[in-house]
Amino acid sequence: MQISKFMTPEIIFGQQAISQVGESLRRLGASRVFLVSDAGVASAGWVERVIDYLDAAHLDYHLWMEVTPNPKDHEIHAGVEAYHQFGGNAILGVGGGSAIDAAKAVALLATNGGRIHQYEGVDHISRPLPPMVMVPTTAGAGSEVSQFSIIADTERKMKMTIISKSLIPDIAIIDPQTLTTMDKLLTANTGMDALTHAIESYLSLAATPLTEVYSLQAMRLISQYLRPSAASRFNVEAKQAMAMASLQAGIAFSNAILGAVHAMSHQLGGLLDLPHGEVNAILLPYVLEHNYIAAPERYQKIAEALGENTAGLSMHDSSRLALKAVKELARDLDIPQSLSSLGLHADQIEALSKHALLDVCMATNPRDMSIADVAALFRKAL
Amino acid sequence: MQISKFMTPEIIFGQQAISQVGESLRRLGASRVFLVSDAGVASAGWVERVIDYLDAAHLDYHLWMEVTPNPKDHEIHAGVEAYHQFGGNAILGVGGGSAIDAAKAVALLATNGGRIHQYEGVDHISRPLPPMVMVPTTAGAGSEVSQFSIIADTERKMKMTIISKSLIPDIAIIDPQTLTTMDKLLTANTGMDALTHAIESYLSLAATPLTEVYSLQAMRLISQYLRPSAASRFNVEAKQAMAMASLQAGIAFSNAILGAVHAMSHQLGGLLDLPHGEVNAILLPYVLEHNYIAAPERYQKIAEALGENTAGLSMHDSSRLALKAVKELARDLDIPQSLSSLGLHADQIEALSKHALLDVCMATNPRDMSIADVAALFRKAL
Repeated sequence: MQISKFMTPEIIFGQQAISQVGESLRRLGASRVFLVSDAGVASAGWVERVIDYLDAAHLDYHLWMEVTPNPKDHEIHAGVEAYHQFGGNAILGVGGGSAIDAAKAVALLATNGGRIHQYEGVDHISRPLPPMVMVPTTAGAGSEVSQFSIIADTERKMKMTIISKSLIPDIAIIDPQTLTTMDKLLTANTGMDALTHAIESYLSLAATPLTEVYSLQAMRLISQYLRPSAASRFNVEAKQAMAMASLQAGIAFSNAILGAVHAMSHQLGGLLDLPHGEVNAILLPYVLEHNYIAAPERYQKIAEALGENTAGLSMHDSSRLALKAVKELARDLDIPQSLSSLGLHADQIEALSKHALLDVCMATNPRDMSIADVAALFRKAL
Repeated sequence: MQISKFMTPEIIFGQQAISQVGESLRRLGASRVFLVSDAGVASAGWVERVIDYLDAAHLDYHLWMEVTPNPKDHEIHAGVEAYHQFGGNAILGVGGGSAIDAAKAVALLATNGGRIHQYEGVDHISRPLPPMVMVPTTAGAGSEVSQFSIIADTERKMKMTIISKSLIPDIAIIDPQTLTTMDKLLTANTGMDALTHAIESYLSLAATPLTEVYSLQAMRLISQYLRPSAASRFNVEAKQAMAMASLQAGIAFSNAILGAVHAMSHQLGGLLDLPHGEVNAILLPYVLEHNYIAAPERYQKIAEALGENTAGLSMHDSSRLALKAVKELARDLDIPQSLSSLGLHADQIEALSKHALLDVCMATNPRDMSIADVAALFRKAL
């Protein structure tokens, strides 16, 4: 047994939890709050809501929303300039994975300086970050509890994965209410992202008993509640369960890291600026099929967590039901089945595979991968 | 759904994890380390081992071992004096629940001042504590990850429960090797303490999905590994599983709080200075039987986690197997069956019951309790 490490932020979870945002920042010593969000979240009303709580706590703030899906290096550099110009001493991120990853990257540069590219990889951060509070408005990314920030390198057309426990926010505030303003597509894509986190963290070479229970419980919740959550904006029980599933999957992958699905989807997302959850959902069945020989007995647990009846079946027969369950869920949610429908061309696959093989997430994939393996998977999913 | 909060320290787990003690303290900015331990732990060799790592990290230290089981108010007051005299700026606790609870109480007074009695109850701590690293050498107390410190009030002959997230250590270092020096009695008593944490946190009114998965997993591990761990000092697999079980139960109860077993055993332990785990183990079946009507369906999950076969049984029939499983485990471990064997007299029960009813842990017990209920339970267990 190797030595393993485990960390989470302080977590505040529940209906109306968002009302604790001002008090939480105060508790961390904040007075001037740099608020990172985006236009979609603002138009859903959450930015206004959060600002009311900042006002009530007598906190000065600066609202910065110059961030796009798959947040980009130059956006982070502009963000940190705005942070210094404002004279911020704390960071609040409100939104999906992109807004929160951007908020964390701005926090990183705020005290460590330089360009975001310098911090790519594991543990290159030396100085403490400003206090960070994060409020997710989707149920999938898990960035509010993770030690990851994923930023696009626009010149190399790649994604950079930055991993450090300094990137774990101080406080994550998860309010299932915020999920009622997602449309069906965003609910499905982010929910499939959460499923991918749960499955890849469970199969990861760095999984531990502390992460495994959360990975499996997240799978159970997603298998039961993602469909109804995508079916209705107002199914409160389903939103609450998906918020919890995303949180548990987030804690799991932050500590156990991920695998080939994420390595491949990061790089494809960096190349074509595609929705992360959707790319994960397309790749997941192909990678799952390929990884099977690494851990058949774990696939059996996945099948059971996803609600398959394994009674009376052999280990191999029951474990293969994991793939069936994932495919059925993707089909019920109308997830596209091919990467070509998203704009990928066959002649891009070789370069893409090289980048994916170098992605940090590939190191914990349970099956050894060559460039040829990765390329073959991209081709199957094309 | 109410708002719930969840927190853990940074956790370092595994064989040889103890070797990270110096580096961990350094990382927190420590230079002068106040080391709290006790004679039993020292004679097992762990104090010497830890001091080697402090020396290697060039940390000054002062070893303080004036702490007894059920740590006492005057010991804490002497401890904080020694801390100031030494000029400490960090606290390292190495030992069972008593040493670690004492280390946390000394840390509390080091920066907040006054007498320990002022902090009894929930959230009475205003100033940040010095950096704290804790290394448990038993698998049961969970204090290394909890927001609890339990200190005996020697004048009132009661135990004071102090709860605050400030009491959560910065880093918990859990090395299953340290369990190989426990004797059979300590292994059994502390293991039953861990089981009580798992069960009471699961039945607690403050349980959440984040705590429940750890409560149940801890029960599974304890039901499988506590017997072999008590049978042999050198069963590495069993020690590792019990270290993980104690950790998971500790995270669960720190966030979900406990119930009547702990409320009663705290006060009995305060009155007669008895081993906490042993008292818990005696009380657990009686309280479990009494609490049954509060949550029969949860008892079914407990029965399953404890390895009972519930196939084909009704919910009520299967849930009652929880009690059978707990009794059999206590019997296999030679846990005494009566409180009178530990020195309790019938005429002490009324005063004891009053104190137990006021214990903070009673507030989250799943069944309403009167003084008469508590007294009846003490009498049954007599």
